[in-house]
Amino acid sequence: MSEIRALLFDVFGTVVDWRSSVIAEGQQLNQHKELNIDWAEFVDAWRGLYQPSMDAVRTGKRPWTILDNLHRESLDQLMVKFGLVNWSEEETDHLNRVWHRLRPWPDAVAGLERLKTGFIISTCSNGNVALIVNMAKYSGLPWDMILGAEVTRHYKPQPQAYLESARLLGLAPEQCCMVAAHNSDLVAAASHGLKTAFVARPGEYGPSQTQDLAAEHDYTYVAENFLKLASAMGC
Amino acid sequence: MSEIRALLFDVFGTVVDWRSSVIAEGQQLNQHKELNIDWAEFVDAWRGLYQPSMDAVRTGKRPWTILDNLHRESLDQLMVKFGLVNWSEEETDHLNRVWHRLRPWPDAVAGLERLKTGFIISTCSNGNVALIVNMAKYSGLPWDMILGAEVTRHYKPQPQAYLESARLLGLAPEQCCMVAAHNSDLVAAASHGLKTAFVARPGEYGPSQTQDLAAEHDYTYVAENFLKLASAMGC
Repeated sequence: MSEIRALLFDVFGTVVDWRSSVIAEGQQLNQHKELNIDWAEFVDAWRGLYQPSMDAVRTGKRPWTILDNLHRESLDQLMVKFGLVNWSEEETDHLNRVWHRLRPWPDAVAGLERLKTGFIISTCSNGNVALIVNMAKYSGLPWDMILGAEVTRHYKPQPQAYLESARLLGLAPEQCCMVAAHNSDLVAAASHGLKTAFVARPGEYGPSQTQDLAAEHDYTYVAENFLKLASAMGC
Repeated sequence: MSEIRALLFDVFGTVVDWRSSVIAEGQQLNQHKELNIDWAEFVDAWRGLYQPSMDAVRTGKRPWTILDNLHRESLDQLMVKFGLVNWSEEETDHLNRVWHRLRPWPDAVAGLERLKTGFIISTCSNGNVALIVNMAKYSGLPWDMILGAEVTRHYKPQPQAYLESARLLGLAPEQCCMVAAHNSDLVAAASHGLKTAFVARPGEYGPSQTQDLAAEHDYTYVAENFLKLASAMGC
């Protein structure tokens, strides 16, 4: 019963390179709209509001709110701060949905295709269902299922995000392996009985990244990328 | 905004041939266990308990219960009736999970692959997530997402099963098209604003099928099979 049957993937940073993807779209906006925004600064500020915005939901200060809406609230703040004014609702909504158009790391799609031959591959992300579905269509991510925050109504690292995701697959926690580039995510998953796989993404936060450069604990698997993970798992 | 973005598929009967699949496994059981069960009669009785078992949940007589568990309660009754005694828990559970191993109609996988190029393709089935995920892995069904009863906690034709499935995709009802071989499912979906596609499966209930032999209403699409539906929808 303890054989791994499903892999649960963190998405932002583990599967997709959110920082470069947002910067690339932002730079196109600079050209098309004759702006002069530093999109690296912009996206770092946007991502900086990510955990605080979820904390308000985790602590019960506000009712369940999907990530698209948290992203939008953060964006509205930053557009004022960065002087992006007189945008239409359609333009603003399109920029907010840049998180639906993130690009995978170079090994991700090929690695997932191999891992899919041996395991159920599901997301276990804080992204809402529409965000993750649209990203999968946009970037060719071959998920078997989309689990995580919205279907469990809890943001990682709350226990329910992991345990309800396993339960929905009809599996015990130890039959699931959380795959992430973040030590904190894996430590939380392991504390609830899931197996763990660390894949380092040392460029996630750009050239000055200082955290999650290496595995800091004794995980079930540690692999350089998804292709190496697939080999290690026999796929 | 009213352009179709997602197809929501009924699964049992529309995508997979549950009756022949269960009969085929049953006949193998007859050989291996030296039984003499009429599996056509058995599966018709099993499926006959399907709607009544969900009605107890729909009416609130019992709390939310997934289909695997409803199937198992029905199976336990029928095993007594058909004289299947002294089975281990493992054997009984394996038979119950025959619904995870249903085979697609001949056009289904190729049709879904084509439809997937133009639309989000999701289930909107009364099957629980594990059942539909395992069936997809077993039979190569390329779903983008699994929605329906378990994630909405309502069995079709309750409105929430359709409307919450659309909402989870971030779509308005009219941006979703329900695909089913059953007039009642499509009438319910249409009453909540979804578009509709009827694909006849005149062999679903075996040679003596009398219902759902043809489209009985004015649906958005009526197609002979999924390949014809893909062509009609421009995929």
